[in-house]
Amino acid sequence: MTNAVQNLGQFTIKATDGQARRGSLVTAHGVVQTPIFMPVGTQGSVKSLCPQDLDNAGAQIILGNTYHLYLRPGDELLARQGGLRRFMGWDKPILTDSGGFQVFSLKDIRKISEQGVEFRSHIDGSTHFFSPEKVMAIQNNIGSDIMMVLDECVAYGADHDYTAKSLELTTRWARRCREAHPRHKNGQLLFGIIQGGFYKDLREKSLAQLAEIDFDGFAIGGLSVGESIPEMYDMLHHLTPLMPENLPRYLMGVGTPLDILEGIEAGVDMFDCVLPTRNARNGTLYTSTGKVNIRRAEYREDQGPLDPDCGCYTCRTFSRAYLRHLYVAQELLSYRLNSLHNVTFFLDLARRAREAIEQGRFAALKQRYVDIFRPGPDAETDAGPNTGVDA
Amino acid sequence: MTNAVQNLGQFTIKATDGQARRGSLVTAHGVVQTPIFMPVGTQGSVKSLCPQDLDNAGAQIILGNTYHLYLRPGDELLARQGGLRRFMGWDKPILTDSGGFQVFSLKDIRKISEQGVEFRSHIDGSTHFFSPEKVMAIQNNIGSDIMMVLDECVAYGADHDYTAKSLELTTRWARRCREAHPRHKNGQLLFGIIQGGFYKDLREKSLAQLAEIDFDGFAIGGLSVGESIPEMYDMLHHLTPLMPENLPRYLMGVGTPLDILEGIEAGVDMFDCVLPTRNARNGTLYTSTGKVNIRRAEYREDQGPLDPDCGCYTCRTFSRAYLRHLYVAQELLSYRLNSLHNVTFFLDLARRAREAIEQGRFAALKQRYVDIFRPGPDAETDAGPNTGVDA
Repeated sequence: MTNAVQNLGQFTIKATDGQARRGSLVTAHGVVQTPIFMPVGTQGSVKSLCPQDLDNAGAQIILGNTYHLYLRPGDELLARQGGLRRFMGWDKPILTDSGGFQVFSLKDIRKISEQGVEFRSHIDGSTHFFSPEKVMAIQNNIGSDIMMVLDECVAYGADHDYTAKSLELTTRWARRCREAHPRHKNGQLLFGIIQGGFYKDLREKSLAQLAEIDFDGFAIGGLSVGESIPEMYDMLHHLTPLMPENLPRYLMGVGTPLDILEGIEAGVDMFDCVLPTRNARNGTLYTSTGKVNIRRAEYREDQGPLDPDCGCYTCRTFSRAYLRHLYVAQELLSYRLNSLHNVTFFLDLARRAREAIEQGRFAALKQRYVDIFRPGPDAETDAGPNTGVDA
Repeated sequence: MTNAVQNLGQFTIKATDGQARRGSLVTAHGVVQTPIFMPVGTQGSVKSLCPQDLDNAGAQIILGNTYHLYLRPGDELLARQGGLRRFMGWDKPILTDSGGFQVFSLKDIRKISEQGVEFRSHIDGSTHFFSPEKVMAIQNNIGSDIMMVLDECVAYGADHDYTAKSLELTTRWARRCREAHPRHKNGQLLFGIIQGGFYKDLREKSLAQLAEIDFDGFAIGGLSVGESIPEMYDMLHHLTPLMPENLPRYLMGVGTPLDILEGIEAGVDMFDCVLPTRNARNGTLYTSTGKVNIRRAEYREDQGPLDPDCGCYTCRTFSRAYLRHLYVAQELLSYRLNSLHNVTFFLDLARRAREAIEQGRFAALKQRYVDIFRPGPDAETDAGPNTGVDA
């Protein structure tokens, strides 16, 4: 339970630059300045980083995965521990997904019905059932500041007929979520999720149905699931102008620096992705001059900082040669120093976007990043498939 | 190269309490307060901890493993990078072993001769040769503050004849090390290593021979290699009263909290061991009420701190329940938070020993730890075999 927060859920747009918006969202545990990137803490930890690291990187809000937290340590345990924030020592806001995305990615081990979805745990094979009401109760136990409705995310390539039926189910589930979680209960906001695959008519239909329900914000689900970058960007630009203007917009599981800038340009306010942390653990680091594969021999003797334009502990303290050594020697410290930098890079990107929108120079900022990270033929494989969890 | 430090190598005993000594040792990069515990940074990183973590834990000096650093990233690279301290961002002193201990533990892949020891790399199988002169040159490149001579550490159970011949070889190698590294060259101190297995006459002989060489300190090698605790303590108490009083004494690769206190009681000044970091990664944590196996189900809902008497970030911030969750979920953060605590515990132990010696109450301090960590039947297996490296 949370003391009442004045203006809870209020989303204020302070400035715009084209479609891009500079806003703020009032949550029970702090005001989130948007556009914002949310690091992913799948099972109660943004991998290898402690809350101090996240603070130092400038994180305002992080994401937790309901499916994972439900299985381990368990949402009822979390409730008894005072919620996820207290459990993990993070005093700022948390957003949780509904767990649906993970369950639907367990392709062979789930059964969908009107009532919900049955699935087997990836940990011990035990059988579980998620209904809209159940995922609301779980997120209540987790105590996140922003909850997401249960939705079905259809696979890339699903046909028009299946996708149409699926979005209707997602709408019915969304209504049940709203009924199970009355507005601002426990100080927790609730967002709807727009589905409809890669059919514009279905996306519009999904949005129109969800817009009739009283949500605190809207997410775009089902992108970055295997489509090409032009397909994703096309759908994004088609959809955002149709979304309610006065509510926050969240593009789920996206993406690369260029994807995020494209989303901001289209008027999206919130992003999350495992890319910075997962790539950090693979030795792929984002810098002001492009991506650095730190394992490459060319960095063996490189005494310079990873990124001279970055103020993170990693860049202030260590050379590329040392970071390469740690990576090659498979030292645990490598994962942390790399993650700290990449998360800082993504949060700096969001901060710079906010400043640029305020100053009416967002297009120039975006162009600068495009010049650095110009999408190549393999650009869309950057993140690998979007699994929504950092595992 | 280092600017001249006044009184380099000077060891001052400020107070004694029985045989226990409260001293200070002047190195090129700082004065080390003794008795002291040195965390082990095998290949340029105390596993999972950054220099800030080590500072926060109260580390004054850390250890590097010459064998590992020679193979990766290579001592010549380290020299070009300004030495290991600069490479790893650690501005306090470093002690390096000679690499001999690791080479001699590669049982099937080394050949000893008068000249030195040939061995094959555990990384790629390539053939290398360590001579006394070579390990001095390597440690010069590493730029450690305290260097160790090349010695042969005989296996536990070696007979009197083999051990006698081995200690003579160790003495000849010690002389060659001293000749190859003139006193305080580059501001680097050099310690001799007493061998002689578990034969008191041979230990005395080794010590007498080494005492004729001009070293900055003496280490006791070849303990904690498989013997029982009473055997180790018996040899320790036999040996220390015979060692030069005015020079620092270093017990290599030891040990548990009780081993360290026993060593301090016998008049030892310096210790290193992989125990706190390796056990941290195995979920075994040292606290003011004894060892905690954090994976145990009893901690599942435990909201208390790991150790209420500890001031480390882990104990100040997180519950046992969270630490258990991180360990069970195999989160990378688990290794760091556990290591930070265990290293703090060992450094606090040394700090408390220093204070107790100054105040003439060392026996009472030791008794307090004995009451907590009373050696049980499995006590000697606590650390596992002493490998001298944290891998």
